[in-house]
Amino acid sequence: MAILFVTGVEDPATWVPALRARLPEARVYTEADAFDRREIEIAVVAAPRAGALRDLPGLRLVQSLWMGVDGLVADPTVPRGVPIARMVDPEMTSQMPEAALAHVLHLHRLHDVYARQQREREWRQWPQPLAGRRGVGVLGLGQLGARTAAVLAAAGFRVHGFSRSPKRIDGVETHTVLAASEILVNLLPLTAGTRGLLDAPRLAWLPHGACVVNLGRGEHIVDADLLAALDAGRLRHAVLDVFDQEPLPPDHPYWTHPAVTVMPHVAAQSTPESCLPVVAENVRRLAAGEALLHLVDRDSGY
Amino acid sequence: MAILFVTGVEDPATWVPALRARLPEARVYTEADAFDRREIEIAVVAAPRAGALRDLPGLRLVQSLWMGVDGLVADPTVPRGVPIARMVDPEMTSQMPEAALAHVLHLHRLHDVYARQQREREWRQWPQPLAGRRGVGVLGLGQLGARTAAVLAAAGFRVHGFSRSPKRIDGVETHTVLAASEILVNLLPLTAGTRGLLDAPRLAWLPHGACVVNLGRGEHIVDADLLAALDAGRLRHAVLDVFDQEPLPPDHPYWTHPAVTVMPHVAAQSTPESCLPVVAENVRRLAAGEALLHLVDRDSGY
Repeated sequence: MAILFVTGVEDPATWVPALRARLPEARVYTEADAFDRREIEIAVVAAPRAGALRDLPGLRLVQSLWMGVDGLVADPTVPRGVPIARMVDPEMTSQMPEAALAHVLHLHRLHDVYARQQREREWRQWPQPLAGRRGVGVLGLGQLGARTAAVLAAAGFRVHGFSRSPKRIDGVETHTVLAASEILVNLLPLTAGTRGLLDAPRLAWLPHGACVVNLGRGEHIVDADLLAALDAGRLRHAVLDVFDQEPLPPDHPYWTHPAVTVMPHVAAQSTPESCLPVVAENVRRLAAGEALLHLVDRDSGY
Repeated sequence: MAILFVTGVEDPATWVPALRARLPEARVYTEADAFDRREIEIAVVAAPRAGALRDLPGLRLVQSLWMGVDGLVADPTVPRGVPIARMVDPEMTSQMPEAALAHVLHLHRLHDVYARQQREREWRQWPQPLAGRRGVGVLGLGQLGARTAAVLAAAGFRVHGFSRSPKRIDGVETHTVLAASEILVNLLPLTAGTRGLLDAPRLAWLPHGACVVNLGRGEHIVDADLLAALDAGRLRHAVLDVFDQEPLPPDHPYWTHPAVTVMPHVAAQSTPESCLPVVAENVRRLAAGEALLHLVDRDSGY
């Protein structure tokens, strides 16, 4: 069994030795190695450059190390006939609720407001409701969203969740959730139906002074619309962990906006320790002819 | 029954009408009113100016609106023979764990580090352990500390708690807790035994790169020692909700220190809605000759 590690982002120096140790009988190559493209049966990927999966005639599985496979599904150079498996990583599904709770509590407790006051040396107290009086919306109730919603509810928040097939995402339920969300957490998958979902009309459904936490994909948000809502004071603060272009370009207005927290895509990180058992299980299943785990439906996009 | 409202900090315009509505049969005065000092039986206080409780010959109860009564106990003008009751406020005991969890998650998730990186437009990811691999210490396991420790444990942290009589606070147990605390939360009462507890020798017991969250009293920390540890990089960050002098003076180095978060004493706020039922119950008990709630032991200081 020959495997090509071609993630485009994740560091081969960290991953390839761990992959070799985990799968001692497989031959694991990077693009820097000398290998015969015809023998590759599995590509382990994250965000490979376009064309990296071309000319692999023996390819039988594209195994992602990431939960979000929007880039793979959109890339026309990824061969259509080969199944894609996404990562469902127990470490990431534990990390994401911690990250979301940290951001939501920070905003709930007005810590963004107090940080701005500190810069002005202003000593001023604001009324503080308990979590039970705070409406929090979670967009996306998949592997990450459902668990995040449960953790937020356990912390006492009034949680409103939304999950729908792409075709119905325009429905009234979205508006109901948005209108109840003083803090909105986005954990949707990026699909044709969710791209640009948080635009000016939908952001206008949020209560005045609401906050947005984007842990999904940068493309879910129309940046100009979000910046306009923040500049107008209609929204109070945005915590952004993901961006259209990553790393976020140095001249992007988000970096210096006083109402924006920029996080370098760290809400949930893939690690070899947690991902490689899932990869190894799919390699074993492929060799044994068993059903593969976490296969992607290219039509729905996740 | 005549009550003197003389808090020194809390706004009479908010509290006095609520107190009168709650106790319609009592006569409630502020120092601005015309009243006969001999008729006052109860003083409702927070941080009254020294001498405010002198010349009240009929005084039978000093009822604090605050949980921390260190100022009252230390004030020699508060008549010795009159019992002091402190506030044990259900709203505050719910708010404090939320505030502590917000700060601990923020530090646990390195959000202070990422905030500094944002100021430099630096896109850099750091390894992120789960809460279960993070040691958090809680100093003080009273009404607030015990509940805070339980909430932190429920969030998955490895929580180490410390609570001792003042005489034993120098014991080895403190050092054990400090050495295990990557994040240390202080919720001790301020007493003769805990004043200046977090000084250079004790801060040196914390692991390298540890963080401190002070939700107790400013006097628990030796400011110069904390600043020295932060400046040396021995400690990573301090979140301070309380200070020796409040409001924090505009020229204090904490305001602009990059490794210090200044909060204007908002971790748990007293509100009339939550405190006045407790006050009213003690007023009723005093009139009925029943045992009073939450009496302070002046020797232990809380």
